[in-house]
Amino acid sequence: MSDSILTNDKKFVFRSWTEQNKANPMIIAGGNGAYFWDDKGNKYLDFSSQRINLNLGHQHPKMIEAMKTQLDSLTTCAQIFSTEPRTNAAKLIADRTPGDLNKVFFTNAGSDAVEHAVRIAKISTGRSKVLTMHKSYHGATAGSLSLTGDQRRWFSEPGIPGVVRFFGPHLYRSAFHSKNEQEECERAIEHLEEIIKYENPKHIAAILIESIVGSNGVLVPPSGYLQKIRDICDKHGIVMICDEVMSGFGRTGYWFAVDFWDVCPDIITFAKGVNSGYVPLGGVAISEKIAGHFDDEYFPGGGTYYGHPLACSTAVASINIFESDNLLSKVRLDGEEVVYPKLQDIKNNHQCVGEIRGLGLFWVLELVKNRETKEPVVAYGLKKSASCPISEFTKECMRKGVSVLTSGNYLFICPPLIIERHDLLKGLDIIDKVLFGIDFTK
Amino acid sequence: MSDSILTNDKKFVFRSWTEQNKANPMIIAGGNGAYFWDDKGNKYLDFSSQRINLNLGHQHPKMIEAMKTQLDSLTTCAQIFSTEPRTNAAKLIADRTPGDLNKVFFTNAGSDAVEHAVRIAKISTGRSKVLTMHKSYHGATAGSLSLTGDQRRWFSEPGIPGVVRFFGPHLYRSAFHSKNEQEECERAIEHLEEIIKYENPKHIAAILIESIVGSNGVLVPPSGYLQKIRDICDKHGIVMICDEVMSGFGRTGYWFAVDFWDVCPDIITFAKGVNSGYVPLGGVAISEKIAGHFDDEYFPGGGTYYGHPLACSTAVASINIFESDNLLSKVRLDGEEVVYPKLQDIKNNHQCVGEIRGLGLFWVLELVKNRETKEPVVAYGLKKSASCPISEFTKECMRKGVSVLTSGNYLFICPPLIIERHDLLKGLDIIDKVLFGIDFTK
Ligand SMILES: Cc1ncc(COP(=O)(O)O)c(C=O)c1O
Ligand SMILES: Cc1ncc(COP(=O)(O)O)c(C=O)c1O
Repeated sequence: MSDSILTNDKKFVFRSWTEQNKANPMIIAGGNGAYFWDDKGNKYLDFSSQRINLNLGHQHPKMIEAMKTQLDSLTTCAQIFSTEPRTNAAKLIADRTPGDLNKVFFTNAGSDAVEHAVRIAKISTGRSKVLTMHKSYHGATAGSLSLTGDQRRWFSEPGIPGVVRFFGPHLYRSAFHSKNEQEECERAIEHLEEIIKYENPKHIAAILIESIVGSNGVLVPPSGYLQKIRDICDKHGIVMICDEVMSGFGRTGYWFAVDFWDVCPDIITFAKGVNSGYVPLGGVAISEKIAGHFDDEYFPGGGTYYGHPLACSTAVASINIFESDNLLSKVRLDGEEVVYPKLQDIKNNHQCVGEIRGLGLFWVLELVKNRETKEPVVAYGLKKSASCPISEFTKECMRKGVSVLTSGNYLFICPPLIIERHDLLKGLDIIDKVLFGIDFTK
Repeated sequence: MSDSILTNDKKFVFRSWTEQNKANPMIIAGGNGAYFWDDKGNKYLDFSSQRINLNLGHQHPKMIEAMKTQLDSLTTCAQIFSTEPRTNAAKLIADRTPGDLNKVFFTNAGSDAVEHAVRIAKISTGRSKVLTMHKSYHGATAGSLSLTGDQRRWFSEPGIPGVVRFFGPHLYRSAFHSKNEQEECERAIEHLEEIIKYENPKHIAAILIESIVGSNGVLVPPSGYLQKIRDICDKHGIVMICDEVMSGFGRTGYWFAVDFWDVCPDIITFAKGVNSGYVPLGGVAISEKIAGHFDDEYFPGGGTYYGHPLACSTAVASINIFESDNLLSKVRLDGEEVVYPKLQDIKNNHQCVGEIRGLGLFWVLELVKNRETKEPVVAYGLKKSASCPISEFTKECMRKGVSVLTSGNYLFICPPLIIERHDLLKGLDIIDKVLFGIDFTK
């Protein structure tokens, strides 16, 4: 059985983000909470929430129950109709977004959320340019990929017109030669203002940023940075779009990462944590003002499955679980009391750990060959080979029962938010131990 | 309860393809087979399969059962892992696609299927241009919308570079002044070859067409046309992509519309009928040869939810239902024995019916003010107003218990494939009767 799955997988499945011959997949047969297992019964502690999206963990009983209930009435219908799950999901989300971001547009995923957010910004401002960061990821469709600031877009260029990139703050690898966070913040803002000046502020529809840059290394902005962007956007009538596909819905211990700095963008894009991917779902939360532009003007966007009743019912169930289990404060405490102190120990134990960064249960270890030169263990844009130290490391973690996600020289620590403390400690301990056995200096 | 849903819907839901103030939604509470009902218990015969996607109808018991079973083991996981539902879905689909289209890449929907199909064509050929038809729809993300040949893209231009449009065959409104189908076919091909010549065939990565143009009016190509495109693509090394998002998975009485003409493209995009949208799912079926390009070369595409286990399990269940219920031949017979003869009667009864077109359970009536001038009842690109005859018509059908989809001057006849004969006849009778009461000449 398992053999035929693997044979047929190789034969019939075309795979994402890889050379097809390189894929050497493992079969997942089931999961529960922070654990999942393969077809042979090997159990793994999920330290990446799959693709940093399974915030409620595997097979949450209340989620499964809610889905079965919804399946008994209405699984799907066209978005032109209203349904109770969509309305309730929109209201619950609007109640949790900051400020007046009270209009919710549902999509299938993060990429199309970004596509529609940017379309809304362009049409409502009548402007054509969008500023995005180097070191960012916004999705895999032509628009969201063009707006991406990492190597994943290289293969699909030229993309959509009007994308202009800037450097965000990142003290550890400062583009501005800053000496501390405050200086980094000031210089990053100065740099952004300079670019806006040369691009013509009146031509800029939106600044699109990840509130905390996710897959490009959990780059937590210095305090003040997001507020300064808010001010710039206000000054020039630019739409501030925060992509919270990865950082939203509790990952940081807040509904949205922007809440940590008390900043209110004009638009938030979300997906992943909104329903832990139990059914594909994403969306855009839009300010009353910007949404109002389309009160009497045609809004040109949508997809067959947008606002899917079953998908929306899982968002409702998920938000209710967050509330009833007090998950946000749990995540904040886990971050402060367990992850941060333990990652500091790990950094002290291992020269290969250049920096640790994060918030809540959204953390990264940046791995370097050498602390002085900060040379990354994997050069930018290059695909790692199967035998490089970081692959050795992830394999050894798997052998010890912890599934970790790495990308480039980033090792993510992003377990499901429902993880129990002893499991959190166990995973961090195993990572600590495994690091002792790997030589990253080569 | 219903009141609060409508109030909250207006307040919190941002809606697709409309002015927000125009939306006057009805609440759908449930469905069964070819019927659905609103919150007040009014029952409607679904004559459009929602957005021409609910091929198996509402709440198919075997689909619901399969989903509940899958929910008991594995709802979701990252696409990097293998799962039984994804593998089985890929194999079942590959077994049904024509020729060697044996590699299946799963996405969330039709738009991102098109995005990735075109990316595969561009990268595997190393070419940059894509030819698409006027009167076509390929999706709402930047790439798929740029490739669209109707007014839905106007609001989001300029789009991606390299899109070149051509006219397809459509005898009723021939761009080539043809007198019959054969002439239309020859002239349309001549026109396409001319465009290819001027664009430089060596720069053209793909020709992307809907095998049967769907939302732009169920334009069934003359026999020979698709084969000629196949020949042109072979001659120049161009990738032939057939978008079967709407026409695929039984809508025409065949697995894919191309099967009707026995033509094999290099890539097929699908969504909708693959699982009737019970969970958002789309995908790309790729020839062995083109997929092979990525055996040792990196494939740069994917999304968090692609290959979703629950979604794939519904594709498996759906294909099994098609087989066990012999749905394809049922659909062919319904088309030949019921729909076509009855639509001919309707055409004879009503001067406003300019043409009827279709195959299987995929039909359209093209409504005109005047049979001689063929002036459409709604001018191209203009939004219909709430009080125009076609809106009156759809409202009256609803009052009589039949939910119909119109767009521009097209009235679609696309019920769920599982519809029973007496319901099919009932719906067609009501449409016939309602047409008598509407004056389309104004
Ligand atoms: C910040 C951000 N935006 C957008 C996306 C794209 O989301 P999806 O993969 O659901 O299309 C991702 C995916 O990882 C993301 O991290
Ligand atoms: C032919 C065709 N391609 C692509 C799409 C886009 O699919 P989706 O709405 O699932 O993104 C559609 C949707 O109607 C379609 O009819």
